[in-house]
Amino acid sequence: MIEALNEIFSSNRVKTDADSLAHWGRDWTRNFKVAPRAVVFPDTVEEVTALVRWAGRTQIGLVPSGGRTGLSGGAVAGNGEVVVSFDRMNRILAFDPVDHIARCQAGVVTQQLQEYAKARDLFYPVDFASAGSSQIGGNVSTNAGGIKVIRYGMTRNWVAGLKVVTGTGEVLDLNRGLVKNATGYDLRHLFVGAEGTLGFVVEAEMQLAPLPDPQSVMVLGVPRLPDVLAVLGRFREIMPISAFEFFSELALQKVTAHRKLKRPLAEAAAFYALVEFDRANAEAALTLFEDCVEKGWVTDAVLSQSDAQAKDLWQLREGISESIAPYTPYKNDVSVRIAAVPRFLEEVDAVVRAAYPDFEVCWYGHIGDGNLHLNILKPAALDGTVFYERCHHISPRIFEIVERHGGSISAEHGVGLLKRDFLAYTRSPAEIAAMRALKQVFDPHGIMNPGKLFPS
Amino acid sequence: MIEALNEIFSSNRVKTDADSLAHWGRDWTRNFKVAPRAVVFPDTVEEVTALVRWAGRTQIGLVPSGGRTGLSGGAVAGNGEVVVSFDRMNRILAFDPVDHIARCQAGVVTQQLQEYAKARDLFYPVDFASAGSSQIGGNVSTNAGGIKVIRYGMTRNWVAGLKVVTGTGEVLDLNRGLVKNATGYDLRHLFVGAEGTLGFVVEAEMQLAPLPDPQSVMVLGVPRLPDVLAVLGRFREIMPISAFEFFSELALQKVTAHRKLKRPLAEAAAFYALVEFDRANAEAALTLFEDCVEKGWVTDAVLSQSDAQAKDLWQLREGISESIAPYTPYKNDVSVRIAAVPRFLEEVDAVVRAAYPDFEVCWYGHIGDGNLHLNILKPAALDGTVFYERCHHISPRIFEIVERHGGSISAEHGVGLLKRDFLAYTRSPAEIAAMRALKQVFDPHGIMNPGKLFPS
Repeated sequence: MIEALNEIFSSNRVKTDADSLAHWGRDWTRNFKVAPRAVVFPDTVEEVTALVRWAGRTQIGLVPSGGRTGLSGGAVAGNGEVVVSFDRMNRILAFDPVDHIARCQAGVVTQQLQEYAKARDLFYPVDFASAGSSQIGGNVSTNAGGIKVIRYGMTRNWVAGLKVVTGTGEVLDLNRGLVKNATGYDLRHLFVGAEGTLGFVVEAEMQLAPLPDPQSVMVLGVPRLPDVLAVLGRFREIMPISAFEFFSELALQKVTAHRKLKRPLAEAAAFYALVEFDRANAEAALTLFEDCVEKGWVTDAVLSQSDAQAKDLWQLREGISESIAPYTPYKNDVSVRIAAVPRFLEEVDAVVRAAYPDFEVCWYGHIGDGNLHLNILKPAALDGTVFYERCHHISPRIFEIVERHGGSISAEHGVGLLKRDFLAYTRSPAEIAAMRALKQVFDPHGIMNPGKLFPS
Repeated sequence: MIEALNEIFSSNRVKTDADSLAHWGRDWTRNFKVAPRAVVFPDTVEEVTALVRWAGRTQIGLVPSGGRTGLSGGAVAGNGEVVVSFDRMNRILAFDPVDHIARCQAGVVTQQLQEYAKARDLFYPVDFASAGSSQIGGNVSTNAGGIKVIRYGMTRNWVAGLKVVTGTGEVLDLNRGLVKNATGYDLRHLFVGAEGTLGFVVEAEMQLAPLPDPQSVMVLGVPRLPDVLAVLGRFREIMPISAFEFFSELALQKVTAHRKLKRPLAEAAAFYALVEFDRANAEAALTLFEDCVEKGWVTDAVLSQSDAQAKDLWQLREGISESIAPYTPYKNDVSVRIAAVPRFLEEVDAVVRAAYPDFEVCWYGHIGDGNLHLNILKPAALDGTVFYERCHHISPRIFEIVERHGGSISAEHGVGLLKRDFLAYTRSPAEIAAMRALKQVFDPHGIMNPGKLFPS
């Protein structure tokens, strides 16, 4: 087996030592078995193709591995698979200065693309806390969201072209950067968010945006959760917003302690909203804030006076996930339509209070998109497996509420291993049957990230 | 057969008279045989489902029919199919004032949605000359583009949810208006642009945008075609633009004669660019214009001083298609990356001059998106079929240039019957094989718009 891999890759690009298997065999999740048989590091599309053809013949599963920052086990290899790391395919191959398109290998790190854009007075608008590690191939395969979705949409919106290797070893060069192309099914969009189960993204042509105007950030203290939505509504009426995030006091405590940050406001509030908008609207935002105080929705607020201050305020939101990582949180990443958020929150809160009376529950999320992150923190004394099982057992009660509100059990983290048993809360039996049939079309041997999305 | 249809539909919703068959059996094309066996007018999703199940049993093809403004024969029924008109499913069923989503039946007319949005201080940004007739179901099924793509993108960008009836009679309720939903393959995007070959769109949840700032329109005279692109480049550097169109002097002559419009500029130029931008940038646009005159790119320009004038200037571009309709033009609707447009234009122009020395060739299009409409006008004396055959025969020479530049043989008109023989100029054999396999998944009986996209 290893001989065959060595034939495709020069030997220093096949690793089988225990440390490498443990390192590249998993993502940020910690609750799944990690047991790959090898890790390979392709340099070229041709090597990926040869590998997939070999895997088809030998029926050995392949697990794509990007920045391994996933939170649903989408990049975990637990059954003797070969892990395909895109760490070496990390170059931006071409830049089109007229169309503003950067052709990226799958292993280009998100931040690398952001900086590449900035150096050309352009902007890559998909951003999130793990941008320093996550890779474009993984972003595309999970249709990554993050903190600017309300203004710029998901990763999908920025994919102008996609080169994929399917489960039969075919290379598809999809859309090639065209704005308009009405020639049948847009397969590009089928591979975006497919979590590598239909094929592997090897290159992506990423559209860059014009540089935005200078931005300001305001953090507001909001005692009652429904009023966070009221504040969102007011902002949306008055000005275009670039981000609208929220987090709870517990989340603030965790992140200020972990990153040694100052609290943003003199007095604590139960919840905080973080809003980003064009600096030109700062005056209007202050007036809006006063209005919100008068209405009793908001107690206090702080407005950034510089880019550095804006960045500091962003840390309060972006650092949360990292700050609670030591508690090995059980993550729920759910979404509903924005209109449904207030009722949904209330119902979920009731379940959570009843189900986890002894656990800390950390709320935050991209509430402007209807997306909530609900993190259950593990008490230090509790065994990890017991904790995981208990949370996993409670999840359906939350997902039933999601289903009732027509929402999604995975807003932006994907399905992977963590959510596959719960897929039917969001997708109908007919949809799941269709998805399985599509999987069969592109991956008839069942070798592309097997067991993710649905059981293999 | 008719009895079965009468059982599903009350009898006044099944038409078989010759006039109805001719009327509903075709779109705006005039070169394909029209021979449906009946036209039906469903009121409900359940009726569509029953019809599809019946068609599956009887192996009778179904052709979806919206506003019948298509230009590629996508809605032509030429082989005894049953035409499914969505004319009666023309209501906007719900409006979500928080998410700004309108739930439309397939037969809602584009302009109806535009006006519905406007009445709520919102904006439906997909717009084109046939907006007064075209229907949302057709827009979605062809991923309609039009004149605001450069700022707002294609129809795809505005589809928040989609209800489709597949070829097996399953109803799929896709995405349901969620901003974020990472639960496997996004089937919604597979049905957008599928031309009804996988299933029929019965409802679409359309995202509405905030009202734009007031707009200004400038029309510039540009003697040399490559300089149109230079002007586009300058505008893109200086300000966000909402539209960038171009048309040739011949197109201007046709439209001013047909609509009895005044010519925009005192002197004729070989080409004209029409630019729309925020009124706040009007001063900057005038400076830019002077700069373009100095560079020798532009001879003259006119800037709208009111919404009424802006509308009049738009007529010069929007009325072209209608003004040349009497010449039963052979339409090429091609696109390349924006960067490739100058070279591409030059090469196509050479072919066209050589191939059609005796025909009038009318150039116009959404050049800011890399999309050109190249219309060959039929001389009055020439027989229609001879003309069509001669043009169809020359098309490959244009498509070879498209292929060489990595472009699309159908930018926004779809494939239908007109382009299906040429699909391989834009999509690879592996892509076409994959598309056929997908068709098999959703339409195993081959009853959904048979013969469109590829031969049945």
